[in-house]
Amino acid sequence: MTADARALLIIIDGLGDRPIAELGGLTPLEAAHTPNLDRLAASGITGIMDPLAPGVRVGTDVGHLGLFGYNPFAVYWGRGPIEAIGVDLALKEGDVALRANFATVDDALRVLDRRAGRIREGTKELAFSLNGMKLSDGTEVIFREATEHRAVLVLRGRGLSAEITDSDPGPNKEGEVIHRVKSRIPGFAPAERTASLVNEFIDRAHKILSDHPVNRLRREKGLPPANIIITRGAGMRIKPRGIAERFNIRGACIAGETVVLGIAKMAGFETFTSDRFTANIDTDLMGKAELALEKLKDHNLVVVHIKGVDILGHDDYPFSKLEFIESIDRMVGFIMKEVSRSHNFYVGVTSDHSTPCRLREHTADPVPVLIYGEDVLTDGVKEYGERACARGGLSRINANEFLLILLDLLGVTYRFGR
Amino acid sequence: MTADARALLIIIDGLGDRPIAELGGLTPLEAAHTPNLDRLAASGITGIMDPLAPGVRVGTDVGHLGLFGYNPFAVYWGRGPIEAIGVDLALKEGDVALRANFATVDDALRVLDRRAGRIREGTKELAFSLNGMKLSDGTEVIFREATEHRAVLVLRGRGLSAEITDSDPGPNKEGEVIHRVKSRIPGFAPAERTASLVNEFIDRAHKILSDHPVNRLRREKGLPPANIIITRGAGMRIKPRGIAERFNIRGACIAGETVVLGIAKMAGFETFTSDRFTANIDTDLMGKAELALEKLKDHNLVVVHIKGVDILGHDDYPFSKLEFIESIDRMVGFIMKEVSRSHNFYVGVTSDHSTPCRLREHTADPVPVLIYGEDVLTDGVKEYGERACARGGLSRINANEFLLILLDLLGVTYRFGR
Repeated sequence: MTADARALLIIIDGLGDRPIAELGGLTPLEAAHTPNLDRLAASGITGIMDPLAPGVRVGTDVGHLGLFGYNPFAVYWGRGPIEAIGVDLALKEGDVALRANFATVDDALRVLDRRAGRIREGTKELAFSLNGMKLSDGTEVIFREATEHRAVLVLRGRGLSAEITDSDPGPNKEGEVIHRVKSRIPGFAPAERTASLVNEFIDRAHKILSDHPVNRLRREKGLPPANIIITRGAGMRIKPRGIAERFNIRGACIAGETVVLGIAKMAGFETFTSDRFTANIDTDLMGKAELALEKLKDHNLVVVHIKGVDILGHDDYPFSKLEFIESIDRMVGFIMKEVSRSHNFYVGVTSDHSTPCRLREHTADPVPVLIYGEDVLTDGVKEYGERACARGGLSRINANEFLLILLDLLGVTYRFGR
Repeated sequence: MTADARALLIIIDGLGDRPIAELGGLTPLEAAHTPNLDRLAASGITGIMDPLAPGVRVGTDVGHLGLFGYNPFAVYWGRGPIEAIGVDLALKEGDVALRANFATVDDALRVLDRRAGRIREGTKELAFSLNGMKLSDGTEVIFREATEHRAVLVLRGRGLSAEITDSDPGPNKEGEVIHRVKSRIPGFAPAERTASLVNEFIDRAHKILSDHPVNRLRREKGLPPANIIITRGAGMRIKPRGIAERFNIRGACIAGETVVLGIAKMAGFETFTSDRFTANIDTDLMGKAELALEKLKDHNLVVVHIKGVDILGHDDYPFSKLEFIESIDRMVGFIMKEVSRSHNFYVGVTSDHSTPCRLREHTADPVPVLIYGEDVLTDGVKEYGERACARGGLSRINANEFLLILLDLLGVTYRFGR
């Protein structure tokens, strides 16, 4: 409404699901005991939200672009540059950035584990051994570790192109040999050259990593060695205008995942992370809650991102998904107790996409959303769940629209027309 | 879900209607006894669907473009080329194709019947008498009969343009004199020339048809003679990519109507028709059902199109519309008995547009839709009907979105982003 209006936006990554027989035909969210989320739904307005558009599956990056106010159809330029922003790596004009994974291959270069056992320890040392490499034509390599097995590869040189394929064979393709990177535009010299430079990097990195002390230790402990780098999502820098500037708001984003932090930063938000925010189920939920309460004092919009639910969907753990949702509900209860009865205070709860347990991957199913606030039009929905919210007053909207509705409640949007 | 997933999509042409006093204020679909469709709704997810966008009326062609995965705003290039594909007439670069009707005019060229009494017999002979005509400047005429009164006119020559108006005065304009075809871009020579060529064809065709033995026989029997050709929907060939290729699926389409077969073919579907599939109320519904069951064995998506309901709407026969809907319901019951309890099997039921009996023409009213499948989020709607489905979990979507949602359930869509 006015300058003192505040909103908290909770993004529960991969929340949506489908009916699960073992949960009596309910989804994990429907089956979970979530009195606090239900209370927000009952005194708020609810609906269902397509991350991008009905029937379109999205990745975490695209789902968050929408939630942070971008039109993904217009601005999507690959995950690499977003990851680079996430690890505070300033891209220069002409740089090509790639999303990279530490992965495990056997001697025949078959990818045994795309995440090297979700490696956490030692990635800084491994990245250090690759960073600064000069490739055969003088192109410089910048390599930086991100969350867990994730990393960012940047090629800096002249005449590079991001029109190249992925070396990562993709999810559920374990056992396949790592792909050779190729130009997406056959005969286009900059792309052909960039592809061969990425291949050169991968080969040289494989030699360096195979003998690295971190990996010798991992083998000793029976852990899969992080002995190769697989790449995807090549892209170059572009600079779309962020919502913080567009709507003149102060935004804060609290997250453990680099891609989310990257998009938030791009949108002009201050970002806050911590070693305890792991982007996994061992994340410090109450730590995030306390930080959110603190940041709400001097920010209009505070986004809290929680990743673990998505991981449990990918791993097909419906009961753990349910339990983790219940922990999030307790976090919401804690926050609401602290801020209850604040004027001009809104809470949005949403997700970036569905990750149904039984399918173990993102689907296009819309996610349930709610906006709580003193002056929203309640809709009779008493529960935060996929089916309950489908009867809600927001009806069916997309991620961009959801954010705009929240900003409009905050009173920071402007009028189109006179 | 996976490679073995299958879907049946039933398109009930012109299904949607408005309250009818004689049916106690219900629509024909609401008043009909449809236990099988209701069962699918009760264990499926329902919603309402705009063929293109809210408040926009569409033709059968545009309605089906959306349902077959095209964005009609992007690809619509006139009905002529679609009809041409439907009758297996391969257009060459530069050809102009027009949708044509056999019609009846009086001596003053007033259109008495735009469909020549929905002529069925003798159209092949009539078309033969026009096909191959050379126009004054050497332009060649290709003329082929389609379903009932429908036909396709193709002009093949140099420097033609599709930017011309229709000679068909349009629905409910009986008594009006046939329109002279004009250029839509005054002064644009190719269009001016093409318009005058079409007018030349219509004049010459009128002379040939008036004396044709088929028409002499029709007059003798008291039937309206098919003594003129009226034209509309001029267009040229373009080649958009079909959904079969985009999503790597095997599709089959079972229909009696050429425009639907044409769009399906364009989308990369195998098409199946038969003399018994009449695109009218005497169509062989059970024959379509049996063929659908057979084609489901080796196709991911089988579309069954049923035209008769639309015709009964155009003719304002609400009771017949109700009864024909009940026949379709029995067909659905037969199919479901055969396939019940299949894993990964989905059924979509939809329509291309509403044809309210009292209005006798297409309106923009959304149509009720449902998707049945083991893992969809049911929504408490127990009945397949215009008003019941408006409370459904799919909320309000468009035809394109409906198809994408069905394909996403099938698991054949791809992810936007990582």
